[in-house]
Amino acid sequence: MVHLLLINGPNLNRLGKREPQIYGSQTLHDLEEELIHFAAQYEIKLTCYQSNHEGDIIEQIHEAEEKFDGIVLNPGAFTHYSYAIRDAIASVNVPVVEVHISNIHAREPFRHQSVIAPVTIGQIVGLGVTGYKLALLALLEKVRGGEGVWKN
Amino acid sequence: MVHLLLINGPNLNRLGKREPQIYGSQTLHDLEEELIHFAAQYEIKLTCYQSNHEGDIIEQIHEAEEKFDGIVLNPGAFTHYSYAIRDAIASVNVPVVEVHISNIHAREPFRHQSVIAPVTIGQIVGLGVTGYKLALLALLEKVRGGEGVWKN
Amino acid sequence: MVHLLLINGPNLNRLGKREPQIYGSQTLHDLEEELIHFAAQYEIKLTCYQSNHEGDIIEQIHEAEEKFDGIVLNPGAFTHYSYAIRDAIASVNVPVVEVHISNIHAREPFRHQSVIAPVTIGQIVGLGVTGYKLALLALLEKVRGGEGVWKN
Amino acid sequence: MVHLLLINGPNLNRLGKREPQIYGSQTLHDLEEELIHFAAQYEIKLTCYQSNHEGDIIEQIHEAEEKFDGIVLNPGAFTHYSYAIRDAIASVNVPVVEVHISNIHAREPFRHQSVIAPVTIGQIVGLGVTGYKLALLALLEKVRGGEGVWKN
Amino acid sequence: MVHLLLINGPNLNRLGKREPQIYGSQTLHDLEEELIHFAAQYEIKLTCYQSNHEGDIIEQIHEAEEKFDGIVLNPGAFTHYSYAIRDAIASVNVPVVEVHISNIHAREPFRHQSVIAPVTIGQIVGLGVTGYKLALLALLEKVRGGEGVWKN
Amino acid sequence: MVHLLLINGPNLNRLGKREPQIYGSQTLHDLEEELIHFAAQYEIKLTCYQSNHEGDIIEQIHEAEEKFDGIVLNPGAFTHYSYAIRDAIASVNVPVVEVHISNIHAREPFRHQSVIAPVTIGQIVGLGVTGYKLALLALLEKVRGGEGVWKN
Amino acid sequence: MVHLLLINGPNLNRLGKREPQIYGSQTLHDLEEELIHFAAQYEIKLTCYQSNHEGDIIEQIHEAEEKFDGIVLNPGAFTHYSYAIRDAIASVNVPVVEVHISNIHAREPFRHQSVIAPVTIGQIVGLGVTGYKLALLALLEKVRGGEGVWKN
Amino acid sequence: MVHLLLINGPNLNRLGKREPQIYGSQTLHDLEEELIHFAAQYEIKLTCYQSNHEGDIIEQIHEAEEKFDGIVLNPGAFTHYSYAIRDAIASVNVPVVEVHISNIHAREPFRHQSVIAPVTIGQIVGLGVTGYKLALLALLEKVRGGEGVWKN
Amino acid sequence: MVHLLLINGPNLNRLGKREPQIYGSQTLHDLEEELIHFAAQYEIKLTCYQSNHEGDIIEQIHEAEEKFDGIVLNPGAFTHYSYAIRDAIASVNVPVVEVHISNIHAREPFRHQSVIAPVTIGQIVGLGVTGYKLALLALLEKVRGGEGVWKN
Amino acid sequence: MVHLLLINGPNLNRLGKREPQIYGSQTLHDLEEELIHFAAQYEIKLTCYQSNHEGDIIEQIHEAEEKFDGIVLNPGAFTHYSYAIRDAIASVNVPVVEVHISNIHAREPFRHQSVIAPVTIGQIVGLGVTGYKLALLALLEKVRGGEGVWKN
Amino acid sequence: MVHLLLINGPNLNRLGKREPQIYGSQTLHDLEEELIHFAAQYEIKLTCYQSNHEGDIIEQIHEAEEKFDGIVLNPGAFTHYSYAIRDAIASVNVPVVEVHISNIHAREPFRHQSVIAPVTIGQIVGLGVTGYKLALLALLEKVRGGEGVWKN
Amino acid sequence: MVHLLLINGPNLNRLGKREPQIYGSQTLHDLEEELIHFAAQYEIKLTCYQSNHEGDIIEQIHEAEEKFDGIVLNPGAFTHYSYAIRDAIASVNVPVVEVHISNIHAREPFRHQSVIAPVTIGQIVGLGVTGYKLALLALLEKVRGGEGVWKN
Repeated sequence: MVHLLLINGPNLNRLGKREPQIYGSQTLHDLEEELIHFAAQYEIKLTCYQSNHEGDIIEQIHEAEEKFDGIVLNPGAFTHYSYAIRDAIASVNVPVVEVHISNIHAREPFRHQSVIAPVTIGQIVGLGVTGYKLALLALLEKVRGGEGVWKN
Repeated sequence: MVHLLLINGPNLNRLGKREPQIYGSQTLHDLEEELIHFAAQYEIKLTCYQSNHEGDIIEQIHEAEEKFDGIVLNPGAFTHYSYAIRDAIASVNVPVVEVHISNIHAREPFRHQSVIAPVTIGQIVGLGVTGYKLALLALLEKVRGGEGVWKN
Repeated sequence: MVHLLLINGPNLNRLGKREPQIYGSQTLHDLEEELIHFAAQYEIKLTCYQSNHEGDIIEQIHEAEEKFDGIVLNPGAFTHYSYAIRDAIASVNVPVVEVHISNIHAREPFRHQSVIAPVTIGQIVGLGVTGYKLALLALLEKVRGGEGVWKN
Repeated sequence: MVHLLLINGPNLNRLGKREPQIYGSQTLHDLEEELIHFAAQYEIKLTCYQSNHEGDIIEQIHEAEEKFDGIVLNPGAFTHYSYAIRDAIASVNVPVVEVHISNIHAREPFRHQSVIAPVTIGQIVGLGVTGYKLALLALLEKVRGGEGVWKN
Repeated sequence: MVHLLLINGPNLNRLGKREPQIYGSQTLHDLEEELIHFAAQYEIKLTCYQSNHEGDIIEQIHEAEEKFDGIVLNPGAFTHYSYAIRDAIASVNVPVVEVHISNIHAREPFRHQSVIAPVTIGQIVGLGVTGYKLALLALLEKVRGGEGVWKN
Repeated sequence: MVHLLLINGPNLNRLGKREPQIYGSQTLHDLEEELIHFAAQYEIKLTCYQSNHEGDIIEQIHEAEEKFDGIVLNPGAFTHYSYAIRDAIASVNVPVVEVHISNIHAREPFRHQSVIAPVTIGQIVGLGVTGYKLALLALLEKVRGGEGVWKN
Repeated sequence: MVHLLLINGPNLNRLGKREPQIYGSQTLHDLEEELIHFAAQYEIKLTCYQSNHEGDIIEQIHEAEEKFDGIVLNPGAFTHYSYAIRDAIASVNVPVVEVHISNIHAREPFRHQSVIAPVTIGQIVGLGVTGYKLALLALLEKVRGGEGVWKN
Repeated sequence: MVHLLLINGPNLNRLGKREPQIYGSQTLHDLEEELIHFAAQYEIKLTCYQSNHEGDIIEQIHEAEEKFDGIVLNPGAFTHYSYAIRDAIASVNVPVVEVHISNIHAREPFRHQSVIAPVTIGQIVGLGVTGYKLALLALLEKVRGGEGVWKN
Repeated sequence: MVHLLLINGPNLNRLGKREPQIYGSQTLHDLEEELIHFAAQYEIKLTCYQSNHEGDIIEQIHEAEEKFDGIVLNPGAFTHYSYAIRDAIASVNVPVVEVHISNIHAREPFRHQSVIAPVTIGQIVGLGVTGYKLALLALLEKVRGGEGVWKN
Repeated sequence: MVHLLLINGPNLNRLGKREPQIYGSQTLHDLEEELIHFAAQYEIKLTCYQSNHEGDIIEQIHEAEEKFDGIVLNPGAFTHYSYAIRDAIASVNVPVVEVHISNIHAREPFRHQSVIAPVTIGQIVGLGVTGYKLALLALLEKVRGGEGVWKN
Repeated sequence: MVHLLLINGPNLNRLGKREPQIYGSQTLHDLEEELIHFAAQYEIKLTCYQSNHEGDIIEQIHEAEEKFDGIVLNPGAFTHYSYAIRDAIASVNVPVVEVHISNIHAREPFRHQSVIAPVTIGQIVGLGVTGYKLALLALLEKVRGGEGVWKN
Repeated sequence: MVHLLLINGPNLNRLGKREPQIYGSQTLHDLEEELIHFAAQYEIKLTCYQSNHEGDIIEQIHEAEEKFDGIVLNPGAFTHYSYAIRDAIASVNVPVVEVHISNIHAREPFRHQSVIAPVTIGQIVGLGVTGYKLALLALLEKVRGGEGVWKN
């Protein structure tokens, strides 16, 4: 079984309450439930984690090397300045996919740049909650080579 | 049945021949075959189109409004300067997902900016050929609301 | 009789369909009809041309030197990056007036700069369809010295 | 009868004396005479005003709201830095058309940017004295809907 | 025998007619004749191609891999923004030498930057028509190792 | 007989020893020998000079006006900041061709700009030692009008 | 008794008429009345001044040194370019507090920079008419050391 | 009774010890005491919080939505880069006033920009400890509509 | 007799009172007296003018064409943004020398750029009151060709 | 005895595991052991601390004022954006030496700037683990005036 | 007697030969003669020096501290990049006046900035050879306090 | 025995005389004596060299390859623009450590960037004369592997 880690960064605990016209009305808890259920159908064990603390996210990434086959990371606003999270990813041997719920390229200029993306294997932007699902499948294919990922 | 259009931009006809360390060794023809087959399993009819001509891509997008439910677009190098393709997308009422095979954020600085992304619904970067598959699923979910998209 | 050429660039074939809150609801065909009728009253023979292809516009400009007394050009999004169209204008001996339907200075920053304007004789911005009419009159006065242009 | 205001900004009282290779040899007085005559033929009452004082121009714009149907404004060098004139225009409910005699896009870089254009309805650049006439017609059409503006 | 391809980009079909103080008075046809004749003396078979269409130039470059030993490319104004032509060159295994007739570094700032030069083997600037001849010799030496290139 | 001067700037005395993967393994002495021999076959008398001192290069350029028909100049790193060498060239009436062995546009950003190129007649970049030969021929053609430059 | 001067800059005479969604519907006259009344309760004598003329504001500041204990200044659009007002403040020995009714940091980028703030003692932004009251209290505390400023 | 939260960011626990020529010699504890006392007189219940941890400040802001009527925030150095705090404020429905003790516009350039100010209702800069008091009054007026805020 | 005009711009009426560590302790009146006396010894009639109003300075420059042989101009802070004064100078046929009392290149960055200097004949910076005297002599030599300017 | 504090910032707990081609293969634990041993020979008591949390590092610095004679700080990626750590250092009266194991000037552009260096007494870059030793000696000399620091 | 040093930088030995439309037709030798003669009339002993070598100019400045009362320096192109000459001036206790023959602000952008001016006492620009004379008088007045400098 | 070279760049011969508040009061001669003595205790033979000439420093570096085991280089102001010295270092196979006496990051912005650091093995900044000693030890450890470098 593939074991993946979902990390949601700062303010994502506010999902459902925060600017619903941008982020939708689903709460983080609901989202995590839905994704765990979704993952299970693809034989992915999904562990969910959220933190507003840069240091905690760095340490989750460090520890992930031993425990997980891949990370889905929505760094929230850390996307735009946390070179420390970037270095954390570069320091471990685990594939990371970066996800953003909203289309960051259609928002304020400061949101257009990700200092983290260069050290991930890929980035999914603007596709809402579906973006998380796609990230899980991308990691699954990377780990298992496609076996049981897609409809055959 | 959902009908989607895949547009590959300039130089993507060189897939498999061009810088295989970046783009892999599969040819465009093989890629299109694989994606048509993949799409069929999800009851998507996929039409494939490639052009090195900006004007042709613009016109494909114009015509798509009548004929397709969504567009998967890899604009190649047009990503970085074709405001005309951007305007074409803004002028039609069809959802577009932008795909890049390689991680453009880990390459030359000029590749970090997409002038097209702000008018798409989302962008998938760096996940190789899998990125195209994910884009198809994202559009499918958008059109059908998830029905038959995922393993249930 | 004065013979003028109207060139509309990329996506202007979408007039009336594209973002009507910005560009109005008249189609390109209607606009061309109206302008030909308008021109006729001032004894201008007006030829209309639209293309989404940069190369085609360049060649229309080249050929215009032999056939027309002036060009009204709405370069669409090419305004912001087509140094090739700029060079085409600089290479012919025909006066060009640049027209934009919307007020490009009140839109996205990338639309504020025209790489083409420095080689035209003038630019009319933001006055809607009326801008085309004014451009025709400006060229007429340039060619005929005011005779029959204005109410006397 | 439509009542329009023409405002010429700093140094335009030097017309005819100042750099005639750029601005022509007609004096401001002659220009105003010609434009009043021109306007009369279209049943426009034209009031002419020139000032080298930013504050005076601001106050003319404030007062115009009560007295005029539209303003033709050549802000001279204020074009490039007077955010105060910009705010004055934004604070009144009168349409303004910005006019420049010379092609500011073909001159020094600091002349390429207008801080005022974003709050006008349009801008006419580089067409010499004809630009003022076109601006009057554009405002006339806006106020009267085309009636008696053009040859029918 | 060495087989080389000469590609001239947009507006170079206007040679001799366009700004002769910059580009000289020889037409493109004369230039091509002269270069074919010149090449023949060095046992180079030279094929000449000109296009104002970015897409056509891209495709010529793609096809050149099978048919030519090298390309002399004057990209005209595409030099400054066509990342698509850059990618085309990077996608083929044929040496390219970039040529500019005029000294682009002594002209407008936008002409100082070439987005194409980084993927060529070299660039020759400002030496007029002679630049093309030098480019042919440079490619000849690259292919043949100097044999019969220079006076012995 | 045509008399040309070759000036190599700072660190070019290290040729053959310095970063051979970029600059090749031929020493400066060998290069100069080869170029003198090459030049002789075209009836060019070539004088070679190398200096690591900006002031010495400036003075060589000053004196060249009396003594030489042209200068081939590889300014080394002075290319990127020596406005004093630029002024020296502008102050003499001798044609200068700038040469760079490596493709400076494919290296660090600071190497992309030449402050000297605007006052030369042309620039040859990236063609290795062959670049010097081409520069000699370009100057020869300029001085002699092609006579005896090319194979006839 | 403490004597303070209120200076409102260009277009603030339009308060209540200008963009009420940004600036509220109170007129300048009403605002001044309210502030004079407010000030009186704190034993502040408040003199109100408004001008659209940069030079007049400069001279008010010069004269204030003799006559006032402090200045509340809303420089309007002069905030962003009037280095002359900045120098006027630096040339007098009177404390100045800069006030903006709207949150300039949430509006157009050009409004984010104040060239005047560095020479004031402080700046109050975005708090509407209340901002003026706070500025009066801040100056009062500075002059009187808190005595009678706050509720005991 | 109105309940407000005071958040002081990193290094403000050093008040009185840190650079007293900039920040004064009062300790944070003294400041908080003074402000609580001050607030009480206006029937404000003030809760004070200080943290050097970005994550903790984010969480305080999240929780404030349920518990407080407004926040006075001095983000310290986080002002200049914490987009995560900015997002936290945008995610809650509580008015925030940003306060800076020193005049940040008269210090190093990096201190001139606040990434947080655009999502606050206002900003008070440079007025020392008085700035906090003014912020409390501004929030009080916002919540109570002026009742009991000012001397009547 | 040579007739020169001295124009001092905004805040220079504060000389002697304003920042004496930068500008010295002499008042403007004393300075003007001293310069008139100085000028008389060189048979220069000197007229002195000071204004804080941009428009007034523009009009003084316009009128100077008829009345004066040259202008010494210290534009104060207008130096850095008044394109209108720049245009005024360009519009008259009178030589202007720009003077700054302090060394503007050793002060804040915004003071390093003069938008006016390009249209003057020269600029004298940092030499205190002596700078005005030197400017008078420079204009005198220009008008009289050195006669009676210097000690013989 | 001199008491120094060593602070290693984010991701330095990954030493030995993280990118060994850049950072070497020694673990943080080994490094700390070696440095404690090294320090002891110079009669320095060295306390070692590592954290991935910006707030914790700030607080260590605050507390150091009472407990240590100096700090050796490797801020990791915080180097490039933590103005909060910069302010923490400025707020204490303890000398800090900044150390980087790798040559940050030879890596990605974002690593070239340290926002912290301006408030340290010095910076040692690129000398590997030796850099820490040198920093200890530099602090020792500062505290003890050289006594027993160097070989006699 | 006052003893001054005149230093002319690179390419000024070309005066009279170099671009006479910019620099006039007087040679450096003639200029030096004229200035020595001029200086003598004011009881200045003037020593003249010219060099194209940055290092030599630095050393002249070092030695000047012992031997001269002031330096007139025309740094030629070194003006724009020689921070080493700037440091040399800052390291000696001798007043320096910077002179430029042409109006550097009306030429290429790179000539607008002087890295040297901030450490001089003043700068004289654009007044031709007269600029040198004025610089001598400025230094004379500085040394002697005006005595015998001006006509009394 | 290890043989090292110390190169001090422009103006460092002024040590002790130049700005002692920045550089201390020790002369270069004293510094060199002290460092030779210091080096001897570590069995380093130290050769000292100072020059104000860029070319001479380049040549010292070239020759060092044969004669020295390492170089300690304080490039003075050349740090900020001498790409030629950078290239000289890159062209030799000798380790270089860059030293700056003052903390260049706490001074003028132009001093923050070193164009040389990327090709050195490391950089020591701001530690005064001690910086030179540390650089010697760093090179010694590099050459000898620590043997006899530190107290054991």
